[in-house]
Amino acid sequence: MQWNNKLTALLDISYPIIQAPMLGITTPEMVAAISNYGGLGSLPVGNIDPVNVRALIQQTKTLTSKPFAVNLFTYDIPIAPDNSSFDAMQAHLQTTYTRSGLGVPTVDLKTLELFSYKDILPILLEENIPIVSFTFGIPDTQSLDQLKARNVIMIGTATSLEEAVQLEQKGIHIIVAQGMEAGGHRGTFLPGAFPQIGTMALVPQIVDRVGVPVIAAGGIMDGRGVAAALMLGASGVQPGSAFLLTKESMASEAHKAAIAAATDTTTRYTRAFSGRWARGLSNTLIASVEESELSILPYPYQDALTQPARKASKALDNPSFVAMWAGQAAGMAKKGVNTTDVLKALVEGAEQLIPSLKGQS
Amino acid sequence: MQWNNKLTALLDISYPIIQAPMLGITTPEMVAAISNYGGLGSLPVGNIDPVNVRALIQQTKTLTSKPFAVNLFTYDIPIAPDNSSFDAMQAHLQTTYTRSGLGVPTVDLKTLELFSYKDILPILLEENIPIVSFTFGIPDTQSLDQLKARNVIMIGTATSLEEAVQLEQKGIHIIVAQGMEAGGHRGTFLPGAFPQIGTMALVPQIVDRVGVPVIAAGGIMDGRGVAAALMLGASGVQPGSAFLLTKESMASEAHKAAIAAATDTTTRYTRAFSGRWARGLSNTLIASVEESELSILPYPYQDALTQPARKASKALDNPSFVAMWAGQAAGMAKKGVNTTDVLKALVEGAEQLIPSLKGQS
Repeated sequence: MQWNNKLTALLDISYPIIQAPMLGITTPEMVAAISNYGGLGSLPVGNIDPVNVRALIQQTKTLTSKPFAVNLFTYDIPIAPDNSSFDAMQAHLQTTYTRSGLGVPTVDLKTLELFSYKDILPILLEENIPIVSFTFGIPDTQSLDQLKARNVIMIGTATSLEEAVQLEQKGIHIIVAQGMEAGGHRGTFLPGAFPQIGTMALVPQIVDRVGVPVIAAGGIMDGRGVAAALMLGASGVQPGSAFLLTKESMASEAHKAAIAAATDTTTRYTRAFSGRWARGLSNTLIASVEESELSILPYPYQDALTQPARKASKALDNPSFVAMWAGQAAGMAKKGVNTTDVLKALVEGAEQLIPSLKGQS
Repeated sequence: MQWNNKLTALLDISYPIIQAPMLGITTPEMVAAISNYGGLGSLPVGNIDPVNVRALIQQTKTLTSKPFAVNLFTYDIPIAPDNSSFDAMQAHLQTTYTRSGLGVPTVDLKTLELFSYKDILPILLEENIPIVSFTFGIPDTQSLDQLKARNVIMIGTATSLEEAVQLEQKGIHIIVAQGMEAGGHRGTFLPGAFPQIGTMALVPQIVDRVGVPVIAAGGIMDGRGVAAALMLGASGVQPGSAFLLTKESMASEAHKAAIAAATDTTTRYTRAFSGRWARGLSNTLIASVEESELSILPYPYQDALTQPARKASKALDNPSFVAMWAGQAAGMAKKGVNTTDVLKALVEGAEQLIPSLKGQS
């Protein structure tokens, strides 16, 4: 049994449900579970170094023979911040770590190894990845041409109508409409005021404007959210928080407990972890950066600077310095279940609300 | 033909579609058109003086024999701001008016006549209004007791899960879940950080927590939005912006043109007009108040201070000083149509997406 619409046809999947790429949460096991069940798994490779990207892709391939997407952070590395801003932020953070009894190695701006999507794209092409999704913008013309030449299906992320229009104009095949409810990094890439459009308002406006399939993201936690998104005109959905507490999630136990206790009002936007806006739960690191009133470094410098603390904190199962990304309905996530169970509940919940979905074959 | 669920049964209406109370936009003709078609019209009486409240109610009664709701702003009048804050804001605004060539009478804090819901409630009881909705909070115990004694159906407004829980605990019969997409005043009444929860995340969380029917508001512009809200578990919807450009709307032509040109990113929150947070289009008044960095007066003092400019500006069909409240999808509103046509499109659009709705009787 499968549902049938322009998105399932284009991606050759049974259910138009894409697991959101969640860097630091998503494992090859999660990706494979989704794709094996008939959804589309997304392996996030963000700013991971090329050697590890290849290893993650190959590991996922051992777990599924079905297609999965790889998600790139499509940013160019900006000019390095000046030493004094970097040092001030690092000194402040080290004071916070010490006060919390956390030993964190310092980061040397001069020897920092940073990667952009242009370093990672060749690996995706070598590994014959059939579907690539983008967060933070549109790849440059050369990259787009390489992807198009290999018939790679491209999924872009829009947080506003104008971003969706620009993605379609560049030949992107599918657009994720990321509502402001969504957890994790905003995909925003156009300059100007930071768009915060709710899923209910964003999806139909994008659907009415572009000709390509639209995927709804933000606030979708169960079959009700899937059905609602389809009613709004979306061809599919991209839930993320629904998978945060699964057995395949990389989140530590304390991190999972914090998500399980979340309510509608406990998430907020912050730039403290990475330099880019993202939605998650408050903790010591966010409070420290924001109270300092220091300039937050541009992405990926702030991200590189907070990375060792996230790692050290996670190793101790203490989420005070971990980026606990979560959407506005993350508290609805089921705990201790398999990824497949969550996907099954999304599918069957929607079929119960829209019986005609089940009849499609 | 009518739809049948716990909300239509409770309110004795054919379709669980409530026209949002939009003070300054909603006319008795709009309210009557909605109720006559089988929805629920809402007559907003906010801070209108009791004599005019009665006149509006009586006028609406001449246009429909069906039930309609009256919406109250359930605030208590706070202590007056000190003269110096009031005078500073007034002097600043007068400079802006003069620069724009707009003659606006000054407001005298000492002779200001302000009304609260307690002044208006007796009129609603005398006029046997069967349904009363509240914005800005929960009425006091005495008012609740009076309403309950008359079997008045009470509709509260929640912008967070905690507000919904408190409304149910006080015996409110129906809860509007107002997503952050919604235009106009936020119904927020609990202290603390201002909740900005999207409709897609807010509705299912409230539905899962309370036992009373939930009405979705925010981003609902057509049949797709109605169907989506029902899928999320709402028993009904409360669209507002969808009716902004109808023939029965009080908005002037230039105001309507500005709404018609709105996109997803052109609305924002402001306290400049009334002292309370509300979503609408930017204009000269908002820019002037925010650039001044003066303290905005508490509601209803700021509201009383900007009222003459709104009136003068509207009389000239110049919306520079008019509160152009609008939701994040207001640009989807149909122009130049009757209120009934908008309601019909909401009903029929939803029936097309959920054929089983039509079969209910």
